[in-house]
Amino acid sequence: MIFFTRRERFSAAHRMFRQDWTDEKNSEVFGKCSNPNWHGHNYVLWVTVKGEISENHGFVMNISILKKIIQERIIEKIDHRNINIDVAFMKGKIATTENLTIAIWNELKPEIEKAGASLHCIKIEETENNFIEYYG
Amino acid sequence: MIFFTRRERFSAAHRMFRQDWTDEKNSEVFGKCSNPNWHGHNYVLWVTVKGEISENHGFVMNISILKKIIQERIIEKIDHRNINIDVAFMKGKIATTENLTIAIWNELKPEIEKAGASLHCIKIEETENNFIEYYG
Amino acid sequence: MIFFTRRERFSAAHRMFRQDWTDEKNSEVFGKCSNPNWHGHNYVLWVTVKGEISENHGFVMNISILKKIIQERIIEKIDHRNINIDVAFMKGKIATTENLTIAIWNELKPEIEKAGASLHCIKIEETENNFIEYYG
Amino acid sequence: MIFFTRRERFSAAHRMFRQDWTDEKNSEVFGKCSNPNWHGHNYVLWVTVKGEISENHGFVMNISILKKIIQERIIEKIDHRNINIDVAFMKGKIATTENLTIAIWNELKPEIEKAGASLHCIKIEETENNFIEYYG
Amino acid sequence: MIFFTRRERFSAAHRMFRQDWTDEKNSEVFGKCSNPNWHGHNYVLWVTVKGEISENHGFVMNISILKKIIQERIIEKIDHRNINIDVAFMKGKIATTENLTIAIWNELKPEIEKAGASLHCIKIEETENNFIEYYG
Amino acid sequence: MIFFTRRERFSAAHRMFRQDWTDEKNSEVFGKCSNPNWHGHNYVLWVTVKGEISENHGFVMNISILKKIIQERIIEKIDHRNINIDVAFMKGKIATTENLTIAIWNELKPEIEKAGASLHCIKIEETENNFIEYYG
Repeated sequence: MIFFTRRERFSAAHRMFRQDWTDEKNSEVFGKCSNPNWHGHNYVLWVTVKGEISENHGFVMNISILKKIIQERIIEKIDHRNINIDVAFMKGKIATTENLTIAIWNELKPEIEKAGASLHCIKIEETENNFIEYYG
Repeated sequence: MIFFTRRERFSAAHRMFRQDWTDEKNSEVFGKCSNPNWHGHNYVLWVTVKGEISENHGFVMNISILKKIIQERIIEKIDHRNINIDVAFMKGKIATTENLTIAIWNELKPEIEKAGASLHCIKIEETENNFIEYYG
Repeated sequence: MIFFTRRERFSAAHRMFRQDWTDEKNSEVFGKCSNPNWHGHNYVLWVTVKGEISENHGFVMNISILKKIIQERIIEKIDHRNINIDVAFMKGKIATTENLTIAIWNELKPEIEKAGASLHCIKIEETENNFIEYYG
Repeated sequence: MIFFTRRERFSAAHRMFRQDWTDEKNSEVFGKCSNPNWHGHNYVLWVTVKGEISENHGFVMNISILKKIIQERIIEKIDHRNINIDVAFMKGKIATTENLTIAIWNELKPEIEKAGASLHCIKIEETENNFIEYYG
Repeated sequence: MIFFTRRERFSAAHRMFRQDWTDEKNSEVFGKCSNPNWHGHNYVLWVTVKGEISENHGFVMNISILKKIIQERIIEKIDHRNINIDVAFMKGKIATTENLTIAIWNELKPEIEKAGASLHCIKIEETENNFIEYYG
Repeated sequence: MIFFTRRERFSAAHRMFRQDWTDEKNSEVFGKCSNPNWHGHNYVLWVTVKGEISENHGFVMNISILKKIIQERIIEKIDHRNINIDVAFMKGKIATTENLTIAIWNELKPEIEKAGASLHCIKIEETENNFIEYYG
């Protein structure tokens, strides 16, 4: 069993808030992250897949296939977008990095399995000081 | 003459567009950067001051003074905000990193001079692949 | 179960030596790291907590609470200090990064549990080429 | 149980291809990575060992011993070399990072055990966007 | 006048040597960098252009135009190639980073001027510890 | 004219204070940086030399010569030392990065000129947020 990780990046706007809370309550819980006019980040995404090395080509999974899956399923849908408004797989969820990490796991898992590997970990860095990891 | 650089960071939303252009024209010139629902970045700001070393304390400029100036004049006004909407010193300007760099130069220059040093350079990194520098 | 990591930094002096060893023995085992006049590092600390995502706010743990715990329990006590002399939780221990990592684990674990999460990992980087991880 | 990681670097040329495949087949599977005149990378290698902290010196393993093992067994044999041609422990293998990671694991494991610690993980970064991890 | 820098990366093999020198002489001057079977690097390239900010779009130069120029003139010709053998603009030159930096300057300067900006600096990083800058 | 930069690192303890000031005055001006029991940093040093490219070997200056000069003149004297106590070229100076940068310039300039190049810049990073540059 060997682990292969691909790093990708996307830039997006978001805001943390709950519609069923008052502005005061949102501000108390989420602080400056609930600014009504949005803020944004350069997110860094690491996708780790695992599997046996193929004797055929010496890879766990061909990198061009993994890049294509991440590009089509995630980057094209979230890069230079608003996470709260524009991204279908985040609809109805609080736009925390925790929820985003799990949503991306759910988007990628079936595609990676169709390609013959297993998804091991999704890691998202929101700033250089904070990141989230999810292993399913 | 010696140069002292302080790095600070802020996360903000923005959108590149001109109100006097159609959506098609904005999209043609600014591409995905003109998304109407905004996107955002982790901006990195480097402020370089220059001057003689003080025989009194061995600094060009006391770091705590420079940090306070950058904090009050820039970070508190732009961090976790929308550059197009929330930031007074960017009002009426296209929200490119070029324009942002010059606006921050204009905000900081008089304060740094009041503190006895000279502003040498403002550098802003928008993503790990793009940055702007301005020397006045 | 999801994992949230916060990065913090501190700068400190230290020296590796045992009082019950001669200078020659200390120098033989610890090399230049046992310099009697101390040396120092910019340490980087990663604190990883784990837990379920709260349906209430979408976090594992509110970042402002975790920052406050790390600040009060660790950074205020070790930043710009001498690890061998000034830091109560390192008294009587050889000032290796291994021992420092475990000591910080012991300081943070009860506080993080009081806040409703679990401590998963303490990682400390001493230089860009060396780091230690501890999982309890 | 505590984990100590040492980072080392080496620069090497390589080419991904199988001698029993035509140029067309190699190009189809490996793309530009099969360029017959080679290409190369600055590889980054992380070696993680684990063990109990010695009460004697406070380390898992003396860093100077680990550095010497990695230097003699790996860096001297692969740095500024051609992985396909010059490196005995890669002979007969497709020069993927997956195969390189396992080969380095096999080279280092017995030496680290002779030194009284256990090898936990080999991680190799090929570019800033791709890395492989192997845990045995 | 404002400065805009774009970062790009390429991975290539090379060897430093002079055909009119013996192997001994090459090895004496270039050390391990003259290995006959090549070695390689992940090169990082920074292209800095300068100019006035356009009142039309707020840029020095549209980033998509600069990316296209660098891609077509440099990256497509050198990425995953052998600098000594495959790259026309390095033919007949010793493959040092100094010579590479000047060659890339000469390739890019006329194209950037045709696009209405001025080339200010080419910077190439060969390893994390060494880089070259050229200002014409 | 072309510019070649070499990066080196050293870890050292220091303290900012003036012996002719009271503890209160030192604390007021230098804050936590005047802690009597020292603190320390992982300093990063960039040495930039300039010159014409030699037609003989294609370098500004042979990297092995520059490395040797920096190693012997700076790193061996300051790495894993106390800047205030152990480093002859800092004796009698306040241990600010400004003063350190100029002192290293003075140590390296004659050696680099003896080797046939010119010293262009000394840059020292004290933390990831602060650095000093000196051009003579």
